[in-house]
Amino acid sequence: MGSTTSLHFDEFKMIKELLSPLSIGEVGAYGLSDDGAKIKVKNGDIILTTDAIIKGIHFPESEDPKTIASRIIRVNLSDIAAMGAVPRAYLLVLAIPSSTTLSWMESFVEGLSCEQKEFGISLIGGDTTRTQGELMLSITMIGETYDNKVLLRNGASVGDYIYVSGFIGDASLGLSLIEGRNKANSLSVTDYLINRFRKPTPRIDLGRNLTGIANSAADVSDGLLADLKHICDASGVCAEIYLNHIPISSEAESMVSNNLNLRMDLLSGGDDYELIFTVPFKHISKVNELSEKYNVQIKQIGKIIGKGLNEDVITLKDVNGKTLKIASEGYQHFRN
Amino acid sequence: MGSTTSLHFDEFKMIKELLSPLSIGEVGAYGLSDDGAKIKVKNGDIILTTDAIIKGIHFPESEDPKTIASRIIRVNLSDIAAMGAVPRAYLLVLAIPSSTTLSWMESFVEGLSCEQKEFGISLIGGDTTRTQGELMLSITMIGETYDNKVLLRNGASVGDYIYVSGFIGDASLGLSLIEGRNKANSLSVTDYLINRFRKPTPRIDLGRNLTGIANSAADVSDGLLADLKHICDASGVCAEIYLNHIPISSEAESMVSNNLNLRMDLLSGGDDYELIFTVPFKHISKVNELSEKYNVQIKQIGKIIGKGLNEDVITLKDVNGKTLKIASEGYQHFRN
Repeated sequence: MGSTTSLHFDEFKMIKELLSPLSIGEVGAYGLSDDGAKIKVKNGDIILTTDAIIKGIHFPESEDPKTIASRIIRVNLSDIAAMGAVPRAYLLVLAIPSSTTLSWMESFVEGLSCEQKEFGISLIGGDTTRTQGELMLSITMIGETYDNKVLLRNGASVGDYIYVSGFIGDASLGLSLIEGRNKANSLSVTDYLINRFRKPTPRIDLGRNLTGIANSAADVSDGLLADLKHICDASGVCAEIYLNHIPISSEAESMVSNNLNLRMDLLSGGDDYELIFTVPFKHISKVNELSEKYNVQIKQIGKIIGKGLNEDVITLKDVNGKTLKIASEGYQHFRN
Repeated sequence: MGSTTSLHFDEFKMIKELLSPLSIGEVGAYGLSDDGAKIKVKNGDIILTTDAIIKGIHFPESEDPKTIASRIIRVNLSDIAAMGAVPRAYLLVLAIPSSTTLSWMESFVEGLSCEQKEFGISLIGGDTTRTQGELMLSITMIGETYDNKVLLRNGASVGDYIYVSGFIGDASLGLSLIEGRNKANSLSVTDYLINRFRKPTPRIDLGRNLTGIANSAADVSDGLLADLKHICDASGVCAEIYLNHIPISSEAESMVSNNLNLRMDLLSGGDDYELIFTVPFKHISKVNELSEKYNVQIKQIGKIIGKGLNEDVITLKDVNGKTLKIASEGYQHFRN
């Protein structure tokens, strides 16, 4: 334990020993020692999502193991939130290069443990293998429906108001700071934006309470424009959004300033893990109630419109109602 | 489609198009186009297992994509069988190097499709990412309990008979033939043994009918000795097995002949994906009934005994009752 030498076979056994305490919250995990896990489902419906991340593609080479643990858990929780479900447990696949140290693993497990406590979930199974490539992590997250309902992408209707939680663009700016492609004016701005990339906030309370209120929802993982387009494509509708309604944090504002291109880039930046959703007029008062109850900012950014004559699924308007040209819809890291 | 050039981003979209038809059997898969999938659980209990494989570690470099698809599905189904459950659906994570061609992907999807038909399962979600390393596949398989019972490893009791389905050692001989480490006397022997590695038979019917009969069970993935040791360790017991009772196929017999060391190696060879299980005396007649009903050979190979004075969890005896020394318990590919 605590060794800085790289892993060999016996240490894979120790990894299992490190991981098995993470399973004590679920009796059906059998201490990670059986062929599978059993989950007793309360409502009869179970929600499943999976997300994989690879070092150098989805997170920077130098990233801290606790941060990697936080991020893979939260990214998967965000999908559960976007389905309107409540997270319960997860399975973890780890492909580990031989250069990985045991102290790295210990920090990673500490990160998982913190997130488990914060979100009330347990590890129930997984697989550990070595790899000749880069470190890869994959999580399958299991959630339960809150009231036997789910939030889907395909229910947006013409006239729906489009809402987004939190701030948009922070995470992509944070990543640009981590990678040295950008520079902020102050340490507090740098810290805030980087933290928004490293530790996104899955909107679980909001998501589970939007079932029955929102007609459609997705999480903003590929970028606001790309994820809104997913909703529109699934629903067979178009959207009109207003640039000056997009919620931008004061920290992000300090970086984009008056540069219109930079501001528009935030709409294509991925990794915010906020919720974007559409609500019919009759339910819009409930959105404000949820915002207050769960202390999460929710902004109306546009409206769902019918399919027009032109080919643009999303129309972006400036403060004067003038249509702005969209260069790129989303952050493309092969995530699909 | 059918291109032999390597993949770029647009083709990842095509992969999604290739994969989404695999989801039509489950309405809650939402055509793989939402943030997650929903499964309505009939009995209230769900079984989850996950297994990852990497090219060059878990299968040979040259392996055919249809074979890889078969194997990853069947390996995961075997875990479901070992839990006594019935398979229902799966999530797939694919990490694809840029050298992968679209025609490779098409064959891979064809392989998945064949297995789905054979085992009555559907793809319900997943993630696709590029990798700078080797091709990696990970499946999370979802099963349902057959009668609200599960088969666990920790219930073996002193006096239980130990049984194994099918033949042991075929797959490890098959792998040695694929890798050119070994040579068979005839093409039919070669074909049989290689096929046993490539297309293991998950013992689903046997597994789901062993709940209520067997006290413990596991699938033979790491090797008969290693997996029996897992059962013994989980149950706090020891085992005595008889070398001449181990079911060896005639094809494997033709290769080991009179070489005792080679014969004993078969006990440590992994990848057979047969079931090893222990049954109390009162239920042993039912084992024969299952064998006949599902047309699967089941052999008694030994007995569960109490913890003795020596440290050996498993005692291996020859035809004269003499104890044989076990050199290695299992096939170590970091699977843990």
